[in-house]
Amino acid sequence: MKVIRFPKVEDYPNLLQRPAINAQELHQTVRKILNDVKLRGDKAVLDYEQQFDKVSLTSLEVSREEWETAVQQVSPELRQALELAHENIYRFHKAQAINPVHVETQQGIECWQKAVAIERVGLYIPGGTAPLFSTVLMLATPASIAGCKEIVLCTPPAKDGTVNPAILVAAQIAGVSKIYKAGGVQAIGAMAYGTESIPKVYKIFGPGNQYVTAAKQLVNIDGVAIDMPAGPSEVCVVADETCNPEFVAADLLSQAEHGKDSQVVLVTDSENILQQILEQVERQLQLLPRKEIATAALENSKAILVESMEEAMNLSNAYAPEHLILASDRYSELADKVVKAGSVFLGHFACESAGDYASGTNHTLPTNGHACAYSGVNLGSFMKMITFQCLSAEGIDSIGRAVELMAENEQLHAHRNAMSVRINHIRKEHKL
Amino acid sequence: MKVIRFPKVEDYPNLLQRPAINAQELHQTVRKILNDVKLRGDKAVLDYEQQFDKVSLTSLEVSREEWETAVQQVSPELRQALELAHENIYRFHKAQAINPVHVETQQGIECWQKAVAIERVGLYIPGGTAPLFSTVLMLATPASIAGCKEIVLCTPPAKDGTVNPAILVAAQIAGVSKIYKAGGVQAIGAMAYGTESIPKVYKIFGPGNQYVTAAKQLVNIDGVAIDMPAGPSEVCVVADETCNPEFVAADLLSQAEHGKDSQVVLVTDSENILQQILEQVERQLQLLPRKEIATAALENSKAILVESMEEAMNLSNAYAPEHLILASDRYSELADKVVKAGSVFLGHFACESAGDYASGTNHTLPTNGHACAYSGVNLGSFMKMITFQCLSAEGIDSIGRAVELMAENEQLHAHRNAMSVRINHIRKEHKL
Repeated sequence: MKVIRFPKVEDYPNLLQRPAINAQELHQTVRKILNDVKLRGDKAVLDYEQQFDKVSLTSLEVSREEWETAVQQVSPELRQALELAHENIYRFHKAQAINPVHVETQQGIECWQKAVAIERVGLYIPGGTAPLFSTVLMLATPASIAGCKEIVLCTPPAKDGTVNPAILVAAQIAGVSKIYKAGGVQAIGAMAYGTESIPKVYKIFGPGNQYVTAAKQLVNIDGVAIDMPAGPSEVCVVADETCNPEFVAADLLSQAEHGKDSQVVLVTDSENILQQILEQVERQLQLLPRKEIATAALENSKAILVESMEEAMNLSNAYAPEHLILASDRYSELADKVVKAGSVFLGHFACESAGDYASGTNHTLPTNGHACAYSGVNLGSFMKMITFQCLSAEGIDSIGRAVELMAENEQLHAHRNAMSVRINHIRKEHKL
Repeated sequence: MKVIRFPKVEDYPNLLQRPAINAQELHQTVRKILNDVKLRGDKAVLDYEQQFDKVSLTSLEVSREEWETAVQQVSPELRQALELAHENIYRFHKAQAINPVHVETQQGIECWQKAVAIERVGLYIPGGTAPLFSTVLMLATPASIAGCKEIVLCTPPAKDGTVNPAILVAAQIAGVSKIYKAGGVQAIGAMAYGTESIPKVYKIFGPGNQYVTAAKQLVNIDGVAIDMPAGPSEVCVVADETCNPEFVAADLLSQAEHGKDSQVVLVTDSENILQQILEQVERQLQLLPRKEIATAALENSKAILVESMEEAMNLSNAYAPEHLILASDRYSELADKVVKAGSVFLGHFACESAGDYASGTNHTLPTNGHACAYSGVNLGSFMKMITFQCLSAEGIDSIGRAVELMAENEQLHAHRNAMSVRINHIRKEHKL
């Protein structure tokens, strides 16, 4: 880790800069695949599965038998763990239920707002080095609670054409309707435009590499909603003298093992603690199977010494990390200062892994500074708000003249007229 | 209007198709301007103001004196109307306050979620034929309620370098911090990247033409959040025998006057009503100053006769209109069937103009079928959700083993270790 001592506020932007991701460069390649999927449907998806995932498929949908086999293959312990995680995720997201808002804004004017589930949603679960069954729970559980009618999942199959059984079991627990063997850009294209097998969805969720992210951004321009742009995973740990250096080091490493581009930032007000944490990182690093990845990630990571915990929190807010760990006895007071972060872990026992898997919070979170404006995935991500209004003759009386005047001043005379015909009607009826 | 009688369900997609907007074609032009603004800041914005808005500006910010002059220029009646509209918009959006969610998902695991205002937001108000001061109220009012610290507004000036006084007064009423004279792509670029005068914001809101929409989509790829993609405005009126044909015609026309590309759809189960409405449209059309625009829009518009009101609602949901008017005594029952729409107007007195200006609901709504997945602008649009969690030793005990098992199965050993070090620590402390 690079150690930086007492940076000035004006150096924060440079200090906290993430590596630039130039999605634009990928766009041409990605657009070509998307257009092909739009044009040739299943046939294109099957071709790209052959080309990129090196797998010959005869059909894309995971069959009933494959689901049933998966159930046998997952150990009872893992199934129990998945069920416990699901239970907690369910509880936390169920509590996010959006209450209808109903207001009489003026006498005779009733306005209300109601959350309605997005009918069809698509979840993307990447393949690669690790089977991310936890992300299945994180996305499908709130989708089910919201009441999405169709929850479609795409994930790249292994070379033998199978999908990891833990992914299938997690999907079953969390209420996924259909699973398709498709990965990368072709999966995003299939869910965005629809193919013979894979239904077109209205919103696509889930992580992925830079190709998947570029594909999500491009289909978004074509009118399909997406959860958020995804970048490399990040953690910022704010630690003081009260922290446990062994815990902090383990948390930094759990982020670093994600990928060579993972972002790891430590901020502390204690030189002593800084040294202890660095020592612990060195020691624990030696024991990791993914040591090589973690070492590469740590080379670009920063350990920053600041004057005070207040400064530490300013730095954290300037960084707007995906995950923020407050490794301090003063966690309550520090948490109140958080204005930009995806998910915050308080005190010594709330490790990021707790939230990554099983505490109940969502792990699909804004990276790359997007926490400035984006929320992590939550129940509301699977719903849209519809507003309603009903006016009585009294309501027309309350705002009719104001509407006429505003419409007139915006030079929209038909808008004015739509109100005027009603005002005139009421005057006649009531013989005013 | 084109009259279509008794379409089959399989014809809905074709029947309800909107004109394709090919934003991709604009991207090269738009990207060039954005890059220039990113590079040259204020100087580029001033140059494009000269080129596109034909105005020579010496500075971009609207001065204190200009605000003060505006106050004198707006009639007391219009100011009163703006204040009434603001009051209602304030009431409805204030009621949308997002309550914190707090759940103990398992013993010793506290998870909560809190909405936090987006610090800096940018509002874009188009110029063009009409000064859209109503949109200022619709965007700035919820931004103020949310608690956004900086609310920046860009709008193109007139050729004499002034901004419409009603826009300035609306901005003052609704709590805008700063107004800049900049329009089109250059305004979006300035708010996305920041210039010497115009601050960089985290999220950009507001309507605009296809260039503005393309610019919003491109800066979105660069990491700036946007409210939603905007397309031509739309209304669908569902009417039955109980409707007032004069009102319905006025509502159809108030949509048609927006622009030649406005989308107007009438659905009814009564041939008699259909004819009466068409006659009324013809009659009222003759009296409109924007007759030419409305006539062009109506040429592409559809009047659809269906077998039943149930079918009418299916058709409306398949269309997913921005505005939906339920011109029927049975509005309550019909409203329950709405699953896709931006804003719904119930009964005979709730004209679209009421919601466009002053009833309290927002008029920044999803067009172009985006109501399938997007909400209209609401209080939540100006906030992001942050999740928090705190675990005790008991909490570790509840989920520790499940986290270890899941991490292990996802081949993320450092994730597992972050939990294991805590489990071991607790065992030692408690001498288990």
